[in-house]
Amino acid sequence: MTRIALCAPGKRITRERADAVLDLYAGTDVELVFHKQCFARRGHFAGEDADRLAAFLECANDPDFDAVWFASGGYGANRIVGDAMPRLGEAARAKRYCGYSDTGFLLAALYREGIGTVAHGPMATDIRRDGGDAAVRRSVDWLCGGSEGVEETVGEGPVVAFNLMTLAMLCGTQFMPDLTGHVVMVEEVAEHLYAVDRLFFHVTQHLRGIAGLRLGRINDVPENDRPFGFSEEQIARHWCTKAGIPYLGFADIGHDAANKVVPFGVAGGRATA
Amino acid sequence: MTRIALCAPGKRITRERADAVLDLYAGTDVELVFHKQCFARRGHFAGEDADRLAAFLECANDPDFDAVWFASGGYGANRIVGDAMPRLGEAARAKRYCGYSDTGFLLAALYREGIGTVAHGPMATDIRRDGGDAAVRRSVDWLCGGSEGVEETVGEGPVVAFNLMTLAMLCGTQFMPDLTGHVVMVEEVAEHLYAVDRLFFHVTQHLRGIAGLRLGRINDVPENDRPFGFSEEQIARHWCTKAGIPYLGFADIGHDAANKVVPFGVAGGRATA
Repeated sequence: MTRIALCAPGKRITRERADAVLDLYAGTDVELVFHKQCFARRGHFAGEDADRLAAFLECANDPDFDAVWFASGGYGANRIVGDAMPRLGEAARAKRYCGYSDTGFLLAALYREGIGTVAHGPMATDIRRDGGDAAVRRSVDWLCGGSEGVEETVGEGPVVAFNLMTLAMLCGTQFMPDLTGHVVMVEEVAEHLYAVDRLFFHVTQHLRGIAGLRLGRINDVPENDRPFGFSEEQIARHWCTKAGIPYLGFADIGHDAANKVVPFGVAGGRATA
Repeated sequence: MTRIALCAPGKRITRERADAVLDLYAGTDVELVFHKQCFARRGHFAGEDADRLAAFLECANDPDFDAVWFASGGYGANRIVGDAMPRLGEAARAKRYCGYSDTGFLLAALYREGIGTVAHGPMATDIRRDGGDAAVRRSVDWLCGGSEGVEETVGEGPVVAFNLMTLAMLCGTQFMPDLTGHVVMVEEVAEHLYAVDRLFFHVTQHLRGIAGLRLGRINDVPENDRPFGFSEEQIARHWCTKAGIPYLGFADIGHDAANKVVPFGVAGGRATA
């Protein structure tokens, strides 16, 4: 039996989506427990900062859980990460943590502090997508110690993956891990290409010394009043060249059902493979 | 006679707007010269990176001009700033420079390197706004050595002003000036409040040691699917408190016709007042 606790550091998840995920694992040796905070609502957020902080700490610090799975992204993890980190105890260190998008603020801080084992991967709310069942199963498999859903370019060297905006906002902050020698994968959704270009300007200035950059999917780019003139790969290559960062090609991650699991660190957390 | 050269580091300006600005100063002792690059078009930009770079350098390095005024913002100054800075000569050091929004990348780098005298203020393209004449006159007055349009809280201590997103993208880069002891003013346009909150998280992490932060206008906030729950001033106060930065109140700057001039540095560049 693997026991997985779910909380929502930013946006709530609907009961319907949570139920659909629970149905997938009914009668299996995986027990998923949605913290009631997952369904709270306070303006933009799944509850007040204090509620979301408390729920994350309860999930992470409970020795009866093996893993913490972020139920959804949205926005708000950066509002609790600073208060959360010093309150994580011994039980938090033995756990696996998985999420992506806005929850990258927590993944980064956990990885920086060496607390637990961390992966960028699908969240429970991804059940809503076509192919969402497979997405959800990828993360649950990893949270249970498997590696079936791990992104295929993940190799021997250390790797991380982030939403591009989340990484940009992390750069230079107290939560940013040292990514020297890492392959860094980035993905984005619903940003104009000029904004993607601007984010690459910023992050490549902060990523000198990494092993290389891989480009995940840049999904749902809004129509602009004029074409940007460069593709997302041209953008990535342009800024990598300027910063002396090796551009390594694509990564199989994104805000979509095909999003694969990227365990942070050396040997891809694939110790069980 | 004051001779002012205009170029467009990001987006083009229309001939009609340029003509409207020229009409304002016909028969005066101010000569405005729009570089032809101001009207170029290449996808998103007012010409290729090389064109925009060359135009900026021609304007800044020409000893026959007293000042450089950025014609418009948009996006693209960060794509030329790295190549521009080492190519600025002696004539560039004697000039005044004015712009805001995306051109803040150049203002920051000039201020960091101590090249010329720099101000955040209206651009020629602001002529399109109701009250645009007055906005334009504020910057031209400052470019001619005046101080009539200077933001009223600008005092004895050093100050800078930036678009919030532009400042966020500058933080930690090779173009970011040391803002220790400065009053930092920020303004934003057309960003969701959750994005404004996220930008404040980022910039306040980078601004420890400043004298304080002033909040300009956060204009044209898009409707979101759910209310954010905090006002822009609550956002600014929240992150300033977290970072130990004094919150000093409002600043009279923004993407609008009321946008005042904020000369960078000590004593507000008001030496001629």
